[in-house]
Amino acid sequence: MIIQLNKNISKEEKSNITSSLNNISYKTKTVNTQYKNYLIGIGNNDFDIRKIGNMPGVEDIHKVSMDYKLVSRKWRVDDTIIDLGDNISINRNDLTIMAGPCSIESEEHAMNIIEHLEENDIRIMRTMVFKPRSSPYSFRGLGIEGLRTISAECKKRNIKIISEVMEVSQVEAMHDYVDIFQVGTRNTQNFNLLDALGKVDKAVMIKRGISGTIDELLQSAEYVFSNGNEKILLCERGIRSFEKSYRNTFDLNAIPILKDKTHLPVIADPSHSIGIRKHVEKMALAAIMAGADGIITEVHQQPEKAFSDGQQTLNYPEAKRLYFNAREINVLKRNLL
Amino acid sequence: MIIQLNKNISKEEKSNITSSLNNISYKTKTVNTQYKNYLIGIGNNDFDIRKIGNMPGVEDIHKVSMDYKLVSRKWRVDDTIIDLGDNISINRNDLTIMAGPCSIESEEHAMNIIEHLEENDIRIMRTMVFKPRSSPYSFRGLGIEGLRTISAECKKRNIKIISEVMEVSQVEAMHDYVDIFQVGTRNTQNFNLLDALGKVDKAVMIKRGISGTIDELLQSAEYVFSNGNEKILLCERGIRSFEKSYRNTFDLNAIPILKDKTHLPVIADPSHSIGIRKHVEKMALAAIMAGADGIITEVHQQPEKAFSDGQQTLNYPEAKRLYFNAREINVLKRNLL
Amino acid sequence: MIIQLNKNISKEEKSNITSSLNNISYKTKTVNTQYKNYLIGIGNNDFDIRKIGNMPGVEDIHKVSMDYKLVSRKWRVDDTIIDLGDNISINRNDLTIMAGPCSIESEEHAMNIIEHLEENDIRIMRTMVFKPRSSPYSFRGLGIEGLRTISAECKKRNIKIISEVMEVSQVEAMHDYVDIFQVGTRNTQNFNLLDALGKVDKAVMIKRGISGTIDELLQSAEYVFSNGNEKILLCERGIRSFEKSYRNTFDLNAIPILKDKTHLPVIADPSHSIGIRKHVEKMALAAIMAGADGIITEVHQQPEKAFSDGQQTLNYPEAKRLYFNAREINVLKRNLL
Amino acid sequence: MIIQLNKNISKEEKSNITSSLNNISYKTKTVNTQYKNYLIGIGNNDFDIRKIGNMPGVEDIHKVSMDYKLVSRKWRVDDTIIDLGDNISINRNDLTIMAGPCSIESEEHAMNIIEHLEENDIRIMRTMVFKPRSSPYSFRGLGIEGLRTISAECKKRNIKIISEVMEVSQVEAMHDYVDIFQVGTRNTQNFNLLDALGKVDKAVMIKRGISGTIDELLQSAEYVFSNGNEKILLCERGIRSFEKSYRNTFDLNAIPILKDKTHLPVIADPSHSIGIRKHVEKMALAAIMAGADGIITEVHQQPEKAFSDGQQTLNYPEAKRLYFNAREINVLKRNLL
Repeated sequence: MIIQLNKNISKEEKSNITSSLNNISYKTKTVNTQYKNYLIGIGNNDFDIRKIGNMPGVEDIHKVSMDYKLVSRKWRVDDTIIDLGDNISINRNDLTIMAGPCSIESEEHAMNIIEHLEENDIRIMRTMVFKPRSSPYSFRGLGIEGLRTISAECKKRNIKIISEVMEVSQVEAMHDYVDIFQVGTRNTQNFNLLDALGKVDKAVMIKRGISGTIDELLQSAEYVFSNGNEKILLCERGIRSFEKSYRNTFDLNAIPILKDKTHLPVIADPSHSIGIRKHVEKMALAAIMAGADGIITEVHQQPEKAFSDGQQTLNYPEAKRLYFNAREINVLKRNLL
Repeated sequence: MIIQLNKNISKEEKSNITSSLNNISYKTKTVNTQYKNYLIGIGNNDFDIRKIGNMPGVEDIHKVSMDYKLVSRKWRVDDTIIDLGDNISINRNDLTIMAGPCSIESEEHAMNIIEHLEENDIRIMRTMVFKPRSSPYSFRGLGIEGLRTISAECKKRNIKIISEVMEVSQVEAMHDYVDIFQVGTRNTQNFNLLDALGKVDKAVMIKRGISGTIDELLQSAEYVFSNGNEKILLCERGIRSFEKSYRNTFDLNAIPILKDKTHLPVIADPSHSIGIRKHVEKMALAAIMAGADGIITEVHQQPEKAFSDGQQTLNYPEAKRLYFNAREINVLKRNLL
Repeated sequence: MIIQLNKNISKEEKSNITSSLNNISYKTKTVNTQYKNYLIGIGNNDFDIRKIGNMPGVEDIHKVSMDYKLVSRKWRVDDTIIDLGDNISINRNDLTIMAGPCSIESEEHAMNIIEHLEENDIRIMRTMVFKPRSSPYSFRGLGIEGLRTISAECKKRNIKIISEVMEVSQVEAMHDYVDIFQVGTRNTQNFNLLDALGKVDKAVMIKRGISGTIDELLQSAEYVFSNGNEKILLCERGIRSFEKSYRNTFDLNAIPILKDKTHLPVIADPSHSIGIRKHVEKMALAAIMAGADGIITEVHQQPEKAFSDGQQTLNYPEAKRLYFNAREINVLKRNLL
Repeated sequence: MIIQLNKNISKEEKSNITSSLNNISYKTKTVNTQYKNYLIGIGNNDFDIRKIGNMPGVEDIHKVSMDYKLVSRKWRVDDTIIDLGDNISINRNDLTIMAGPCSIESEEHAMNIIEHLEENDIRIMRTMVFKPRSSPYSFRGLGIEGLRTISAECKKRNIKIISEVMEVSQVEAMHDYVDIFQVGTRNTQNFNLLDALGKVDKAVMIKRGISGTIDELLQSAEYVFSNGNEKILLCERGIRSFEKSYRNTFDLNAIPILKDKTHLPVIADPSHSIGIRKHVEKMALAAIMAGADGIITEVHQQPEKAFSDGQQTLNYPEAKRLYFNAREINVLKRNLL
């Protein structure tokens, strides 16, 4: 049960609604986001929702029985548009392309890529300064300093930044330097981190867990929304299977299924799924046809010399071709489907 | 090691080549297909292949060290074109579309679909008369009789037939009524069946095993080729994973990987992979962008009343739209990639 | 619905029962096994089974709604005992041990192992003469000739033989030389083969599919039973997963689940699951504790020189220790659980 | 490369060793644990380790080339014993049993279970106060208050506590109330949390990731060790697979493999793997036979009324029987293997 409350609902009106729900054995949870105030009713009893729907203070009411409610399309049928400011938004019509290096290696390295992005009208730069690595002895990123240098430059050129946050304490530290917090595949069910990200007014992109189900991904998004943040993107990046001839099994089926179940935008990551440079473009185009609202891809001036992920990273000419073809395909898709 | 032999090689010449290979500890296997005669050398020793290459009777020689050799692109770099006769062929340029009902239900039912196929210029009809079913109590198909009725009609209208063979003894029984033998996902490693199909001059489409690796699929194809039949197609139809919100995990990564490893055509089956009617079209288009040479899809005049697989079967208007869009996308793909 | 019929039921009585079932929209299938005659009713309607149960000719009636019926413990609560003759049987109390080489390599090799088995009172020899191999270029077994030589020797010493059948035509060829037909993991859903094995009066051991579900294994067993053969064993041999530090994921959970769902004996194959010689014994003992009625294991006089599977094969002293420990553990299990 | 340093190594000696390693292109990392000081050399060059081994200040030196080094048995061959104080330790000889409720529900509830544990000489109580839940609307545990109440009681009765930590900030909050920090399956690769746990002098039990590989589990343990904490336990709790007739696929193969690769103790969790109450005991015994050093299991006075995980939780008589049988089996195992 999702009850949208009037902006200026009185204390008494709200308490009446809560009591009515408690009377029919529903527990309630208040959710105040950057846009609206909701009351979530959690229970199973069947009853005439109009009884609640007609109470003073209620703007709208929807029955949603799944474990995820606020992120469900059962309730909100229109696609969510995520406004990043400065006329940059993530929306169904325009294909969103996020591109950039696996990690920032130096200031010079970053500036070179930012120029490449601007030239190609890529408005969201992806890059990591905190890197989750299986081994404690691997390169773990430049840390917050790395972000500061690129943030100023990107602001100048009107490019937004997406970067991975690994830990609650990093949320505040990164806040002023990123436009989208990325939750990585190992943290999809780091519920404390999701709670914390629900309390900031920045977009959050949640990557699907290494072997996370589609429902678990939606429930993780529900954590963020129910803590107060509606600006959520989901990302399919490949799941773990028995097949070892590529990096991860790119679950493109998940894209139409997600688009069906949720109003949130869905981004596809061909770089981390197939993990083989020469096949990244084809898989990006396939993901767009499957229904992705955007793609995220790794690009580097010299992939052979990248600190990490070089084998799946495009060089500038390859990336240019991908941007062009992805936009062409997206136009055709809009016309055909 | 693959040695192509001259058509009119003498017994002595061949025995000299074999001896030379045995001398360097290679075992040999003779492979005579509908097109050519080969000698396969199996061993690991390194040696100067020109020594063998220059022997009388040798047309060409290639080192291929993988477990699959004859189906490898390491040896034959051009895409294989499969000629089905009557100007119908499976080739990289024209998108191959195979469509039809899960199984034949009656003569009338079949005739109606054949008309639909002809109207839409679909030149290959898919349909089953032997159906593998998990439960012994399920409908198992009309048997060979079902094929006879449609075969005559299809020949009249120049439509080719692909149908599943489950057992060695069916190979002969089906031979005159089908143009492509389909090996189903439960029989990908039925080696006796593959052996038998290597001995007929009809095309064979091998579906990937329920949880078969890409390499296992190629090795199964090698069974058919090394028994004498070069007319082989591979089919990605989804693999088994932990995710249960659709039928099978459509492994679209497998398509560019297969196209890289083998010269054989690769067909994609969106119906059995996602298994949800309203998403079949999107996944078909995604598969084409990923590099598929063709698609195979289930269509029925009234999917709601189909004997089996109704939930993933398209009706005629849906199928029409898919054919059109698939062809459009294929043209764009040829132009862009 | 399973209806056990009286041995001397009249034609009319049977036809009355069938009509009554048809009247309530049940389809029927007659199953005559080596032991009993059954009528299987397939349908969903709810009705008072006593109405059928009281009809002349009915010995017993059970409602079983799952896809597998005859192999279900819902109907037959006692463990099935499989009598192999000569006082050798597979039963819950005595631990069944099947041991032997992956394949027969020569007559001398076989005789040596048969002696080892007799010395250790192992009454079932496992060995293959038809070997399913991913690659067409691998050793595929000695064929039927291999069985003839060992069959005579085993009969003399009262040792039974289990060997893999890969193809319908081999059923007849192997019939006189084996006591248990093994259906391998690639043939678990080779339904024609299962049909054929349902028509012989020899035991059949069905290995779980490479990524077969527990329910699919039970349905495959239902194929054999419903064709007329009640002598069925099931075998857990590991499933395919993402983990690559051993051969297959030994699904020991499947053992108590199978014992719960079916009355058939369950055998565990530690050799093919973990696939690492030094760990085979521990996994065999674990399988027994999990509830296995028996184990099947590979043994060879010189595993280092075995034609195949050497890395998972025990030598004689290792095997001896396993037999002893397995029997000890089985006694303790019987006392504790 | 692991170099154990003398306790009273001089600054100069250490700097000499570091320089020598740098000279051969090895990077170094200093690791000071509660027991010893190490220098880890990370590189690939081959050289004579005696050159470093003979330098002043070096106590011992070992080549370990895997991604995990300090937790490897290649270097430390003897099993690690984890001393929890008060004569309670986790060691290879005595079977460790951890038992308790999924979560603490009330003070009364906890006291009742603590009594049950004492009666049965169970020296480690498992219980959660922070619960990771897929849905934000599920019960998430009593929080730190829950721990305080039981901690005093457990100390009185000499029972140690293991409880799950989900977030860096909880490490300090929980520190005084737990004896073993549990890292849950969703946090196996929460590297910031592992870093933090490497800096406390309390034992840490890391559960294997939902679909984590054995190598990833060892690398996660390496995070804790290389941050300074040697008191690590590993826990096999089932992995995600396609099979849905139980909760998780209990990967018992992983136990002997882990025991082979690492000197750390390995605990098995039958409750969360099979997830079905009546099968928990069998799977616990199987895990012991496979080589587990201990088991962790859920017990509750009334599983039917437990707040969570009731379907896999044992009642007191069932648990009593499990404790007894597990200890019997462990004695037999020690005698046989």
